[in-house]
Amino acid sequence: MPPMLPDLDTLNARLRDGATSRAQIVEQAAARAATPAAEAVFLHSTFDAAAQVARAADAASRAGKALHPLAGLPVSVKDLYDVAGEVTRAASLVRADAAPAAADAPVVARLRAAGAALVGRTNMTEFAFSGVGINPHYGTPANPAGGGDTDGAARIPGGSSSGAAVSVALGLAVAALGSDTGGSIRIPAALCGITGFKPTARRVPLAGAFPLSYTLDTACAMARTVADCIAVDSVIADSAVLPRVTDPAATRLAIPRQLLLDDLDPVVARAFDRALGRLSAAGVRLEHVDLPELGELAALNAHGGFSAAEAYAIHRHLLAARRDRYDPRVASRIDRGAGISAADYIDLGRARLDWIARMEARLASFDAVVCPTVPMVAPEIGPLRTDDAHFFRVNALLLRNTSAFNFFDGCSLSMPCHAPDELPVGLMLSHGPMRDAALLGTALALERIVQPIVQPSPRDD
Amino acid sequence: MPPMLPDLDTLNARLRDGATSRAQIVEQAAARAATPAAEAVFLHSTFDAAAQVARAADAASRAGKALHPLAGLPVSVKDLYDVAGEVTRAASLVRADAAPAAADAPVVARLRAAGAALVGRTNMTEFAFSGVGINPHYGTPANPAGGGDTDGAARIPGGSSSGAAVSVALGLAVAALGSDTGGSIRIPAALCGITGFKPTARRVPLAGAFPLSYTLDTACAMARTVADCIAVDSVIADSAVLPRVTDPAATRLAIPRQLLLDDLDPVVARAFDRALGRLSAAGVRLEHVDLPELGELAALNAHGGFSAAEAYAIHRHLLAARRDRYDPRVASRIDRGAGISAADYIDLGRARLDWIARMEARLASFDAVVCPTVPMVAPEIGPLRTDDAHFFRVNALLLRNTSAFNFFDGCSLSMPCHAPDELPVGLMLSHGPMRDAALLGTALALERIVQPIVQPSPRDD
Repeated sequence: MPPMLPDLDTLNARLRDGATSRAQIVEQAAARAATPAAEAVFLHSTFDAAAQVARAADAASRAGKALHPLAGLPVSVKDLYDVAGEVTRAASLVRADAAPAAADAPVVARLRAAGAALVGRTNMTEFAFSGVGINPHYGTPANPAGGGDTDGAARIPGGSSSGAAVSVALGLAVAALGSDTGGSIRIPAALCGITGFKPTARRVPLAGAFPLSYTLDTACAMARTVADCIAVDSVIADSAVLPRVTDPAATRLAIPRQLLLDDLDPVVARAFDRALGRLSAAGVRLEHVDLPELGELAALNAHGGFSAAEAYAIHRHLLAARRDRYDPRVASRIDRGAGISAADYIDLGRARLDWIARMEARLASFDAVVCPTVPMVAPEIGPLRTDDAHFFRVNALLLRNTSAFNFFDGCSLSMPCHAPDELPVGLMLSHGPMRDAALLGTALALERIVQPIVQPSPRDD
Repeated sequence: MPPMLPDLDTLNARLRDGATSRAQIVEQAAARAATPAAEAVFLHSTFDAAAQVARAADAASRAGKALHPLAGLPVSVKDLYDVAGEVTRAASLVRADAAPAAADAPVVARLRAAGAALVGRTNMTEFAFSGVGINPHYGTPANPAGGGDTDGAARIPGGSSSGAAVSVALGLAVAALGSDTGGSIRIPAALCGITGFKPTARRVPLAGAFPLSYTLDTACAMARTVADCIAVDSVIADSAVLPRVTDPAATRLAIPRQLLLDDLDPVVARAFDRALGRLSAAGVRLEHVDLPELGELAALNAHGGFSAAEAYAIHRHLLAARRDRYDPRVASRIDRGAGISAADYIDLGRARLDWIARMEARLASFDAVVCPTVPMVAPEIGPLRTDDAHFFRVNALLLRNTSAFNFFDGCSLSMPCHAPDELPVGLMLSHGPMRDAALLGTALALERIVQPIVQPSPRDD
């Protein structure tokens, strides 16, 4: 297992005991960030500044000041977000000479106000436009679970929040600020063995985040545990989520008959079945349900959906001027938006509202939809670098399950459900718009059941 | 002056006194609706059913039951809204054979739940797509202030809520349910001498309303006074608006230097100046302000804006199949949406958000923007019927001031400010999104100042 940091409760207990200090935690993270395993995780790291924040928090704590659980602890920020004085490249070349941001994005400012020690800008898919996580400009962080270096045997981290997931999985940060448009935090969370929570988009502000899709983009927390995701989500949404931990025996989960369980890799199928077995044994009611709406998604998004239309609006002038600087795979996905008419885009928006209403009606009596986050374990980087057809096939499969809940305007969480000797597998719990608190309560309850082995212990490091 | 019904307070006082009954009020309205002056106001009237509702309300009142101020009183509904069992034609031929609505639109259901006696479906511009109010299929209601019949000397009622405005101005209803996308209740309210309030769009549900623009459509109240508009708005929004009546001496109004005072008809200019003089004499602070954003509107909406793009999405299949049934002027306005790309539409949406933020910043310290609702008095119908160029020029001018506040996603009220011997002129008070309660408080205070003559008295009929 990679040297993930303990969860926030454990860390703060150790800090209270005097067993460690925030400065020490940041220094250890900085040391790990300098190892080959962390190559390409950060596009720009700021561990020195983070260490100052950590020392100040240690001093404030010694002076008896009450601190936020994140205070002085290392948190990474996806290269998508404005941080005052830094260039927001969105891991592109074309924005490498953009002006530094004048101010922090609100979500960054909120993390800073909570005391987080920002350790750097994490790598990502260029402009966040794929679920694979390969970046031809700045390198691809290797999945810590599947190699630990960037040679051909390494596995993809998943994307687009590739560096964000690896920063948590490698213990370079207790939490990462990511973003999710079609699965961009849940996919890398699942493939790297951490937890990622995509809130209902409107709960979290997107000002100061370089956009991919105005309709779907969501600022998100990635961390070790559900509780830590809740802590970060409450900060970036500037409103405390107060989940009610569900009684497993009173919990009803919907297992969809359509799409989401199709074509599962055997490792994923085994981990998912094991998780369902544990949930069932704990008294959770599991019901197979028809969700024919899931079968409509491919046709609804046949021309690229909101992301293609909106990314094209955002990039068309820059793409016309400097196409040679784009990853050709990203450019080709943006290009799909060129042929979309306003009428088709407007129809898609209306069809989505109708689709959401039908899904809400079908799921009203359930606590969550449960499915694997992605139908495969992390594939090797090598063949994906060279084979476009393979890349786009894998990308579509990576995004298949997660993107359904972006279209739903919903909330969705991926938590690990694999055994220590397996490659990481994510279990996804999802629901519709503004069900965040209830979904997180369910996730808190079920995490203890599906992760009896990887559950953090007070001295687990 | 046309025989407008007294305002709700006066009517309810008379009802309490036993001076009249709800049944009598509905019967008198039915009699007026049968006169030539009311020709083409209703596409379908339901005075018999309304009389039953009125009698039931009278009986309930006699039995001591507390009733809503609208209970048993005549209210008209624009042909845009679903009423269970009736066909929603939106004053078109192309929907004349549509299936009857299965249920009331929520706003209609709310009026019915308040006890309103629904007297019929009012005429409108086909599909609500012009501010003039001419309908070649079902006739054009004549402006009661400017003729009283439909011969060449009659003046337009304004649109699109033409019949709605005339139903109130002629005393066929105490209030009308209209809709406003670019000015569709404020323009006819101004030209017919009544009051119309366009709330912030999101406050009022649009389900069961035939759409023109998903982005801009707003369900609205039209009535004699500001207080009556507030009463109806509270019903259709299902939340009581509780305006704080402003102290005139503490009220600051912004008079824009750009666009909204350009090219005023002399009658409008005189009435507007008189209103400003009265407001100033009452202590209201009037300040000329630069709103350069208003100068950007023409370019932003050069290709038809949200209405053209969204109306094209809504109508394109029907228009392809049955173009011959459309008013050619309406069809030509819808056609403008055919050439709009998703990217241009998306850019327009983003530009609007930026525009709104800049307007909000400029107006933050003001209670309202004040301007004439429309820069002209009601023109004669005749030349507008025959001359397309004249029609489109007049239409653009009618919509110029009102549509700015739809683009602002704001709230906006038109109240009469003309003298009894003048053609009606509207004074418009407007502000940004969700300022409804404050704006209505300002309007209540200023109505008493700008309308010392037309102010309702307890026995005014």
